[in-house]
Amino acid sequence: MVHDKMLPEIYLTRHETGIYPWRQPNLFTPFWRCYWNPSEGGCLLVGERVFEMRTDRIYVIPGHFRFSTFARKPFEQFYIHFVPPEHVVFSEPGIHETPLTPECRALFLEWLELKEAGDEYSFRCEVIAAAVLCHALLSLPRDRMLYRESPGPLAERASALIRENIAHPLSNAELAMRCGTELRTFLRHFRKETGESPQQYSRRIRVEAACRYLRYSDKTIDEIAELTGFPDRYYFSRVFRQYQHYPPAEYRRAQ
Amino acid sequence: MVHDKMLPEIYLTRHETGIYPWRQPNLFTPFWRCYWNPSEGGCLLVGERVFEMRTDRIYVIPGHFRFSTFARKPFEQFYIHFVPPEHVVFSEPGIHETPLTPECRALFLEWLELKEAGDEYSFRCEVIAAAVLCHALLSLPRDRMLYRESPGPLAERASALIRENIAHPLSNAELAMRCGTELRTFLRHFRKETGESPQQYSRRIRVEAACRYLRYSDKTIDEIAELTGFPDRYYFSRVFRQYQHYPPAEYRRAQ
Repeated sequence: MVHDKMLPEIYLTRHETGIYPWRQPNLFTPFWRCYWNPSEGGCLLVGERVFEMRTDRIYVIPGHFRFSTFARKPFEQFYIHFVPPEHVVFSEPGIHETPLTPECRALFLEWLELKEAGDEYSFRCEVIAAAVLCHALLSLPRDRMLYRESPGPLAERASALIRENIAHPLSNAELAMRCGTELRTFLRHFRKETGESPQQYSRRIRVEAACRYLRYSDKTIDEIAELTGFPDRYYFSRVFRQYQHYPPAEYRRAQ
Repeated sequence: MVHDKMLPEIYLTRHETGIYPWRQPNLFTPFWRCYWNPSEGGCLLVGERVFEMRTDRIYVIPGHFRFSTFARKPFEQFYIHFVPPEHVVFSEPGIHETPLTPECRALFLEWLELKEAGDEYSFRCEVIAAAVLCHALLSLPRDRMLYRESPGPLAERASALIRENIAHPLSNAELAMRCGTELRTFLRHFRKETGESPQQYSRRIRVEAACRYLRYSDKTIDEIAELTGFPDRYYFSRVFRQYQHYPPAEYRRAQ
């Protein structure tokens, strides 16, 4: 409300053991991932290149980057799925590794202790995950962490309206009216400030919301289409595919 | 949306020098504060007890706790205003001190460097503040950081509706309908699950939102009354006073 959303948003923090065969081909999602594997066996695959995940490294993988995973043997993993604020972009997507510090190791071990005591979903566990995530983000090379130019006040107001109305998208005319501008001026300024048309922006945001539902909820495809403002599942699938390469059901299975 | 809000929300992060006379009598706000003073001079006052703020300590002050501030001489301060997730409570409000670690000091110094380079509002600065805050929160005594019992699904749905409609509060009948229950059942369950009536809960949430606007925006009292769903500034002032002991204008001046 009063403040801008400036911090990453964590969708999921988990610890799992015995992960195998971890076969996830062609992952491509809007979420970022942060991994630490306390045991060996997990592998990341980018094109032809294999990364054998090390136990003394934290891995950060920005969103909108295509990679696959597999395991050589069952392994243990902490993972955090998150998104940075909208205006933060990473100039060279890829697998980013950073050494595991003793402080981070201690944090992970406390997380495990809390999990074993049945406190996995406690506030303390979340703060530990956030502390690890902050550490990992601060270790990303500064010159690769860029800021999208802040859009002008008109695009800012309009994009807030679009985000608040995911389930009931507003038309260009409604957006213009609620921003207090004439339609043609509105369209020209929005594109100039963001590089997209309002409806392109709206579709992208709604597909990203759909990805979250597919990944982190058990709602049906019909429900998700409705929640993200698509008139029916067929139209939803068609648009979704344009952005994510897979239809929604396949996207969900691949996660 | 899919996930619960589990992390603290940061309203404000700042660094200031030459703070004097720092006279804030009887602070009492819903926000928590986290301070580090790189130079001496700042003091906290709780009842008759004076805390001379040390340069080798981080201070955390939970919300809804009454204290005053003053300065013996101009001093330098980093401060973060935040709120933890709604279901987190601190059993013994008070001034909590924790030693400044070398890692935290390094983070603060990097923040200062970024500020001097004109990057005070960058994502990196926010992540640094979040890292410091996580550290401070993890140092609070675990047994004083409690979790409110998670309310049942009905109160959870209803309180989300209340929070989403700050400017246009819903009646009990509307809330019951949108939760798919009969009015009397709704009222009984809401009170049982939360200890408050829906309208008490709504007023409390709206007064807290008003506090944020008063503290962190320059909107007028009339605008704030409208934004927080009060029919006019007179009614707004009366309700606000019941919760915050001051009328809105005085509350704003005291901050």
